[in-house]
Amino acid sequence: MFIAMNRFQVAPGRGKDFERVWEERDTHLNEVPGFVEFHLLKGPEEEDHTLYSSHTVWASRDHFEDWTKSEAFRKAHRDAGNNKGLYLGHPKFEGFEVVQKL
Amino acid sequence: MFIAMNRFQVAPGRGKDFERVWEERDTHLNEVPGFVEFHLLKGPEEEDHTLYSSHTVWASRDHFEDWTKSEAFRKAHRDAGNNKGLYLGHPKFEGFEVVQKL
Repeated sequence: MFIAMNRFQVAPGRGKDFERVWEERDTHLNEVPGFVEFHLLKGPEEEDHTLYSSHTVWASRDHFEDWTKSEAFRKAHRDAGNNKGLYLGHPKFEGFEVVQKL
Repeated sequence: MFIAMNRFQVAPGRGKDFERVWEERDTHLNEVPGFVEFHLLKGPEEEDHTLYSSHTVWASRDHFEDWTKSEAFRKAHRDAGNNKGLYLGHPKFEGFEVVQKL
Protein backbone atom coordinates (compact mmCIF):
# COMPACT_ATOMS: atom_id res chain seq x y z
CA MET A 1 0.00 0.00 0.00
CA PHE A 2 1.19 3.49 -0.86
CA ILE A 3 0.03 6.90 0.41
CA ALA A 4 0.57 9.96 -1.77
CA MET A 5 0.34 13.28 0.09
CA ASN A 6 0.63 16.76 -1.33
CA ARG A 7 1.09 19.49 1.29
CA PHE A 8 -0.31 22.98 0.71
CA GLN A 9 0.36 26.05 2.86
CA VAL A 10 -3.00 27.76 2.42
CA ALA A 11 -3.07 31.54 2.83
CA PRO A 12 -4.96 33.00 5.82
CA GLY A 13 -8.68 33.36 5.10
CA ARG A 14 -8.52 31.23 1.91
CA GLY A 15 -9.30 27.83 3.43
CA LYS A 16 -12.91 27.67 2.24
CA ASP A 17 -11.90 28.72 -1.29
CA PHE A 18 -9.21 26.05 -1.31
CA GLU A 19 -11.70 23.40 -0.17
CA ARG A 20 -14.16 24.46 -2.87
CA VAL A 21 -11.53 23.90 -5.59
CA TRP A 22 -11.17 20.31 -4.44
CA GLU A 23 -14.94 19.79 -4.17
CA GLU A 24 -15.40 20.93 -7.74
CA ARG A 25 -12.49 18.96 -9.16
CA ASP A 26 -13.57 16.24 -11.54
CA THR A 27 -10.93 13.58 -11.02
CA HIS A 28 -12.54 10.29 -12.08
CA LEU A 29 -10.18 8.74 -9.53
CA ASN A 30 -12.72 6.02 -8.77
CA GLU A 31 -12.13 4.61 -12.24
CA VAL A 32 -8.33 4.54 -11.99
CA PRO A 33 -6.71 1.08 -11.46
CA GLY A 34 -5.19 0.74 -7.99
CA PHE A 35 -6.99 3.75 -6.49
CA VAL A 36 -8.21 2.97 -2.96
CA GLU A 37 -9.41 6.21 -1.39
CA PHE A 38 -8.93 9.96 -1.33
CA HIS A 39 -9.19 12.39 1.57
CA LEU A 40 -8.58 16.09 1.76
CA LEU A 41 -7.06 16.84 5.16
CA LYS A 42 -6.92 20.06 7.15
CA GLY A 43 -3.90 20.25 9.42
CA PRO A 44 -2.50 22.66 11.95
CA GLU A 45 -2.86 26.43 11.66
CA GLU A 46 0.46 28.24 11.68
CA GLU A 47 1.06 31.96 11.94
CA ASP A 48 1.08 32.67 8.18
CA HIS A 49 -0.82 29.67 6.77
CA THR A 50 -2.97 26.63 7.44
CA LEU A 51 -1.53 23.28 6.37
CA TYR A 52 -3.76 21.23 4.11
CA SER A 53 -2.82 17.93 2.56
CA SER A 54 -4.34 15.77 -0.11
CA HIS A 55 -4.12 12.14 1.02
CA THR A 56 -4.60 9.42 -1.55
CA VAL A 57 -4.25 5.72 -0.80
CA TRP A 58 -3.10 3.49 -3.67
CA ALA A 59 -2.71 -0.28 -3.89
CA SER A 60 0.98 0.27 -4.74
CA ARG A 61 3.49 2.93 -5.71
CA ASP A 62 3.40 1.57 -9.28
CA HIS A 63 -0.34 2.21 -9.52
CA PHE A 64 0.23 5.79 -8.38
CA GLU A 65 3.04 6.33 -10.87
CA ASP A 66 0.99 4.90 -13.74
CA TRP A 67 -1.74 7.39 -12.87
CA THR A 68 0.69 10.35 -12.94
CA LYS A 69 1.52 9.41 -16.55
CA SER A 70 -2.12 9.11 -17.60
CA GLU A 71 -4.51 11.37 -19.46
CA ALA A 72 -6.77 11.31 -16.37
CA PHE A 73 -3.98 12.90 -14.32
CA ARG A 74 -3.35 15.57 -16.92
CA LYS A 75 -7.04 16.47 -16.96
CA ALA A 76 -7.30 16.55 -13.15
CA HIS A 77 -4.44 19.05 -12.96
CA ARG A 78 -4.99 21.24 -15.99
CA ASP A 79 -6.58 24.06 -13.96
CA ALA A 80 -4.12 23.91 -11.07
CA GLY A 81 -2.34 27.05 -12.28
CA ASN A 82 -5.49 29.11 -11.66
CA ASN A 83 -5.36 28.45 -7.94
CA LYS A 84 -1.89 29.66 -7.12
CA GLY A 85 -3.12 32.65 -5.08
CA LEU A 86 -4.70 30.29 -2.57
CA TYR A 87 -1.44 28.91 -1.18
CA LEU A 88 2.10 30.01 -0.43
CA GLY A 89 4.89 28.68 -2.63
CA HIS A 90 4.57 25.29 -4.26
CA PRO A 91 2.77 22.22 -2.93
CA LYS A 92 5.22 19.71 -1.50
CA PHE A 93 4.78 16.09 -2.53
CA GLU A 94 5.60 13.20 -0.19
CA GLY A 95 5.06 9.53 -1.04
CA PHE A 96 4.92 6.93 1.74
CA GLU A 97 5.19 3.15 1.66
CA VAL A 98 3.24 1.32 4.35
CA VAL A 99 5.77 -0.75 6.30
CA GLN A 100 3.58 -1.84 9.23
CA LYS A 101 -0.11 -2.13 9.88
CA LEU A 102 -2.17 -2.55 13.07
CA MET B 1 -12.34 11.28 11.10
CA PHE B 2 -8.98 12.43 12.37
CA ILE B 3 -5.47 11.40 11.30
CA ALA B 4 -2.59 11.77 13.76
CA MET B 5 0.86 11.71 12.18
CA ASN B 6 4.20 11.91 13.91
CA ARG B 7 7.14 12.63 11.60
CA PHE B 8 10.59 11.21 12.35
CA GLN B 9 13.82 12.08 10.53
CA VAL B 10 15.55 8.70 10.84
CA ALA B 11 19.34 8.69 10.75
CA PRO B 12 21.06 7.08 7.74
CA GLY B 13 21.41 3.32 8.15
CA ARG B 14 19.03 3.18 11.16
CA GLY B 15 15.78 2.52 9.28
CA LYS B 16 15.57 -1.18 10.18
CA ASP B 17 16.31 -0.47 13.85
CA PHE B 18 13.61 2.18 13.87
CA GLU B 19 11.10 -0.22 12.29
CA ARG B 20 11.96 -2.88 14.86
CA VAL B 21 11.14 -0.52 17.75
CA TRP B 22 7.65 -0.09 16.31
CA GLU B 23 7.19 -3.80 15.69
CA GLU B 24 8.05 -4.56 19.29
CA ARG B 25 5.92 -1.81 20.78
CA ASP B 26 3.01 -3.12 22.81
CA THR B 27 0.36 -0.48 22.28
CA HIS B 28 -3.00 -2.20 22.90
CA LEU B 29 -4.35 0.38 20.46
CA ASN B 30 -6.96 -2.09 19.23
CA GLU B 31 -8.66 -1.83 22.62
CA VAL B 32 -8.77 1.98 22.69
CA PRO B 33 -12.17 3.62 22.00
CA GLY B 34 -12.24 5.42 18.65
CA PHE B 35 -9.10 3.78 17.29
CA VAL B 36 -9.56 2.88 13.59
CA GLU B 37 -6.16 1.84 12.22
CA PHE B 38 -2.44 2.35 12.52
CA HIS B 39 0.22 2.37 9.83
CA LEU B 40 3.92 3.01 10.01
CA LEU B 41 4.95 4.84 6.83
CA LYS B 42 8.32 5.15 5.15
CA GLY B 43 8.67 8.35 3.17
CA PRO B 44 11.28 9.98 0.97
CA GLU B 45 15.01 9.61 1.57
CA GLU B 46 16.77 12.93 1.98
CA GLU B 47 20.50 13.57 2.10
CA ASP B 48 20.86 13.28 5.88
CA HIS B 49 17.79 11.25 6.87
CA THR B 50 14.84 9.15 5.77
CA LEU B 51 11.40 10.49 6.65
CA TYR B 52 9.19 8.04 8.52
CA SER B 53 5.76 8.81 9.85
CA SER B 54 3.40 7.05 12.20
CA HIS B 55 -0.13 7.36 10.81
CA THR B 56 -3.08 6.65 13.07
CA VAL B 57 -6.69 7.03 12.04
CA TRP B 58 -9.17 7.91 14.79
CA ALA B 59 -12.94 8.25 14.72
CA SER B 60 -12.53 11.86 15.93
CA ARG B 61 -9.99 14.31 17.35
CA ASP B 62 -11.65 13.89 20.75
CA HIS B 63 -10.96 10.15 20.73
CA PHE B 64 -7.32 10.84 19.95
CA GLU B 65 -7.04 13.43 22.72
CA ASP B 66 -8.68 11.13 25.26
CA TRP B 67 -6.08 8.50 24.36
CA THR B 68 -3.18 10.92 24.89
CA LYS B 69 -4.41 11.44 28.47
CA SER B 70 -4.77 7.71 29.19
CA GLU B 71 -2.65 5.19 31.02
CA ALA B 72 -2.41 3.20 27.75
CA PHE B 73 -0.70 6.17 26.10
CA ARG B 74 1.73 6.59 28.97
CA LYS B 75 2.68 2.91 28.78
CA ALA B 76 3.09 2.97 24.99
CA HIS B 77 5.55 5.87 25.25
CA ARG B 78 7.49 5.07 28.40
CA ASP B 79 10.49 3.69 26.48
CA ALA B 80 10.55 6.37 23.80
CA GLY B 81 13.54 8.09 25.42
CA ASN B 82 15.71 5.03 24.72
CA ASN B 83 15.38 5.47 20.98
CA LYS B 84 16.61 9.00 20.56
CA GLY B 85 19.77 7.97 18.69
CA LEU B 86 17.65 6.61 15.85
CA TYR B 87 16.36 9.96 14.64
CA LEU B 88 17.47 13.55 14.30
CA GLY B 89 15.92 16.15 16.60
CA HIS B 90 12.40 15.65 17.90
CA PRO B 91 9.49 13.94 16.17
CA LYS B 92 7.06 16.49 14.74
CA PHE B 93 3.37 15.94 15.40
CA GLU B 94 0.69 16.94 12.89
CA GLY B 95 -3.03 16.29 13.39
CA PHE B 96 -5.40 16.39 10.41
CA GLU B 97 -9.17 16.62 10.19
CA VAL B 98 -10.73 14.89 7.18
CA VAL B 99 -12.66 17.59 5.29
CA GLN B 100 -13.47 15.66 2.10
CA LYS B 101 -13.65 12.03 1.11
CA LEU B 102 -13.78 10.23 -2.24
